[in-house]
Amino acid sequence: MSKAFQNPKGTRDFYPEEMLRRRYIVEQWRAASVRHGFEEIDGPTFEHASLYTVKSGEGILSELFSFSREGGDDLYALRPEFTPTLARMYAQKAASLPKPVRWFCVPSFFRAEKPQRGRLREFFQWNCDVIGEGGFGEDAEVVGVLVGAMDEMGVGGRVRAHINNRAAMASLVNAMGVGADAVDSAFVLLDRREKLDDEALEAMAFEFGINDFGFLQFLKRPRRGGNPSVEIAVESTPEAAASEATAYARTLDEVAGALRNAGVGDRCVSDPDVVRGLAYYTGTVFEVLAEGERAVAGGGRYDNLIELFGGPPTPACGFGMGDVVLGNLLEDHGLFPSGNDLRDAIDRVVKSVSLRPEVFVVSGGEEHDPLVGPLMARLRRGVESESYRERGADAKPWDADRYDTSAGGVPPMHVRTTSKTTRNLKKLLQEAEKLGAKTAAIVHGPDKVQLKDLGARTDVGDFAIDSQTSNALGDVAYVGGAIAGR
Amino acid sequence: MSKAFQNPKGTRDFYPEEMLRRRYIVEQWRAASVRHGFEEIDGPTFEHASLYTVKSGEGILSELFSFSREGGDDLYALRPEFTPTLARMYAQKAASLPKPVRWFCVPSFFRAEKPQRGRLREFFQWNCDVIGEGGFGEDAEVVGVLVGAMDEMGVGGRVRAHINNRAAMASLVNAMGVGADAVDSAFVLLDRREKLDDEALEAMAFEFGINDFGFLQFLKRPRRGGNPSVEIAVESTPEAAASEATAYARTLDEVAGALRNAGVGDRCVSDPDVVRGLAYYTGTVFEVLAEGERAVAGGGRYDNLIELFGGPPTPACGFGMGDVVLGNLLEDHGLFPSGNDLRDAIDRVVKSVSLRPEVFVVSGGEEHDPLVGPLMARLRRGVESESYRERGADAKPWDADRYDTSAGGVPPMHVRTTSKTTRNLKKLLQEAEKLGAKTAAIVHGPDKVQLKDLGARTDVGDFAIDSQTSNALGDVAYVGGAIAGR
Repeated sequence: MSKAFQNPKGTRDFYPEEMLRRRYIVEQWRAASVRHGFEEIDGPTFEHASLYTVKSGEGILSELFSFSREGGDDLYALRPEFTPTLARMYAQKAASLPKPVRWFCVPSFFRAEKPQRGRLREFFQWNCDVIGEGGFGEDAEVVGVLVGAMDEMGVGGRVRAHINNRAAMASLVNAMGVGADAVDSAFVLLDRREKLDDEALEAMAFEFGINDFGFLQFLKRPRRGGNPSVEIAVESTPEAAASEATAYARTLDEVAGALRNAGVGDRCVSDPDVVRGLAYYTGTVFEVLAEGERAVAGGGRYDNLIELFGGPPTPACGFGMGDVVLGNLLEDHGLFPSGNDLRDAIDRVVKSVSLRPEVFVVSGGEEHDPLVGPLMARLRRGVESESYRERGADAKPWDADRYDTSAGGVPPMHVRTTSKTTRNLKKLLQEAEKLGAKTAAIVHGPDKVQLKDLGARTDVGDFAIDSQTSNALGDVAYVGGAIAGR
Repeated sequence: MSKAFQNPKGTRDFYPEEMLRRRYIVEQWRAASVRHGFEEIDGPTFEHASLYTVKSGEGILSELFSFSREGGDDLYALRPEFTPTLARMYAQKAASLPKPVRWFCVPSFFRAEKPQRGRLREFFQWNCDVIGEGGFGEDAEVVGVLVGAMDEMGVGGRVRAHINNRAAMASLVNAMGVGADAVDSAFVLLDRREKLDDEALEAMAFEFGINDFGFLQFLKRPRRGGNPSVEIAVESTPEAAASEATAYARTLDEVAGALRNAGVGDRCVSDPDVVRGLAYYTGTVFEVLAEGERAVAGGGRYDNLIELFGGPPTPACGFGMGDVVLGNLLEDHGLFPSGNDLRDAIDRVVKSVSLRPEVFVVSGGEEHDPLVGPLMARLRRGVESESYRERGADAKPWDADRYDTSAGGVPPMHVRTTSKTTRNLKKLLQEAEKLGAKTAAIVHGPDKVQLKDLGARTDVGDFAIDSQTSNALGDVAYVGGAIAGR
């Protein structure tokens, strides 16, 4: 058959069944993003090729599909990733945008490389980013939406987010004798630890000109396997770097606290080996790994990038997740619905989304009430029904009764909170109304959360929460049931 | 500012508000398609460039963004339209596909031309096609889904589908003295009639070498303005071509009958001037025109194309509609929601879709029961509630009560029927079950339509229809109310 009549190598034809599978993934991404307060954006499919050399140098051009218009001067390139477009879009409107913005997108990207399993020339990728304000809380938010999507698709228990902090790691490596100019090489070595034995690692280190005994000792500590831990890393740190090791452990502890507050502490492990290849990460970095160490998603904080693209200095944190690897993971675990189950699953996912916030959670007292985060996480996750939980491993994520409200279930909700520092409740409720939120939950303490119907401007009632245990499921169910229009 | 930091000319950045507007249009397209029994597909964003020269010749290449992989031999091009991909995909699997397939897509396309109002370098376009079987019934189906979407968006009353038949028109023009090799030129003249006066038309005709008095007389007949009619065309046909004029009128009459049967007769006008520029159309052609003659969509039958792309001889009919022109039309009529209305409107549209058919309509007697088509059309259109209708021009398409079942409304439904010629009811119901249809409506006659719940395998009851008037609204509402799971 003539080549003209075949799709280009590394691209896909989506016949109806393949298209439904693609939509299942894309709609799960979209639903998780919206529930976590992210707004969808998109840029052009191609950009000025020079947009990609800003961050990656001229070398990137050989990896891109680039082209000009006949008779035109401008060189364009199909987007290989979203970050440059995102940075450009933010930079162009930085002055008029709220701080922070939470943006997501689900478009396709292109790589001009040889196709191989899991790496195609055109693929879909989910990106989520918080831009314009940033600390460990925002890092945890970004991990939260990622974990939320995995939970919804039923693979939450089969993946873990491996977390590290690149800045803290750089200080530690530095203190172990690695010069500032060799830190990137040291990170490459950490990144390869799981795949190389001690001898190969050492040979590679010498090749890089890294021969400090302290760092080599650190490099050869017990492998991750089951236990990537900050403790082992600290223990393996040479005496001379003890105080930096303590500082490193303290930083990771703070990150872990933020992750717990975002309700995803139990899905995450600290992992000193996760450093991410891309040099532009500046702080927290993470990878979601499935069994067999397969990386399903990755991301981190990149506080210098918006400035590089012509914007003001701006903190930012985000991740990317491709459709091919995720699809393979779902398939391998029997968690990809098919036939009419697939159709029903898509219907259910899209129907679960409310573009207007269903609950706007604020503190009625302290500025940063420690109960707000866990309550938001729980409302976003929803509560699986009794009948669903009873079926255990036989229950499928797309089962109709998963969040059945008549059996104690609560569907996952679109939940937001304020980014303002004001404690003026009236102003906070005005913000909620402007966003079109249906209800507000005002946290006065663990025993009293006041629920307001923002449409009818009436009090629905109070309920209690318990952020430490799951005893309060009934109360959260109450919130779910009380929300108008569900 | 550096050019690298701006989106390429003719492309768009979709910030959250722009993205919501894009989704409103795309989700309306998707919902209308699904309701009418079309299944979503997609192809790669780029194809082998040679795929586009098959239909359009080498000249097309200068209008495309084309590129190669560094060091690679293959020339690729960003897709300028969907038809070549569609034809390729169908041809590759023709043997194993059901007949017909009803496919739609909503992706973006690219033109390497100077951007102007309504014509961008990257834009979204909705395509719907019925492939593998075809007559006027399938032509009408395709017009039906198009009109259905316009109705849902509230612009149905502001547009009309102008219908013609290219084969019948060619015979007529031929009979008026235009040689076979000049028919395309004659079509260009017909196409320009509304924009040129008689003198200019005549000059152009002479330039094309068309100087037959009969055709010139036909060309100068009264302009469309308000009344594009087959009658005037027939009256203006020279005596010598009277029998072809009658044949032409008869063909258009048959097309009109099929359109009435598909429930869109009142949205269509026959228009002898609509011939469509593209030479590959073989039969029925149509354009949806808004006030001021703006073309919003266009399409037609193209029975030779699949073969050209390596497939078997295959009838096919479809249309395309771009997002930019449609967006302008909605905006101009105050029919583009904004703010929280926009969010709610999107939520409502996506929630209205059921990927499994809600009703499978079959004839319980005659093979082609004349009641089946109008009943399907009515169920797909739904019934607006009393309160909504009472508000008249003040009612907006996204109002919450539009299809309120508690006020006599029925939401538009996903309705299908069989493509088989069998009258064996058991086989037909098996087909419905295989498709996952929730209910079946078996038409025994205007007074008896039997409704079956296919999940519970029980009879829900009988109802009556009246295909000529709207007296049966209550009965259709009954069907709507009876369908499980709504």
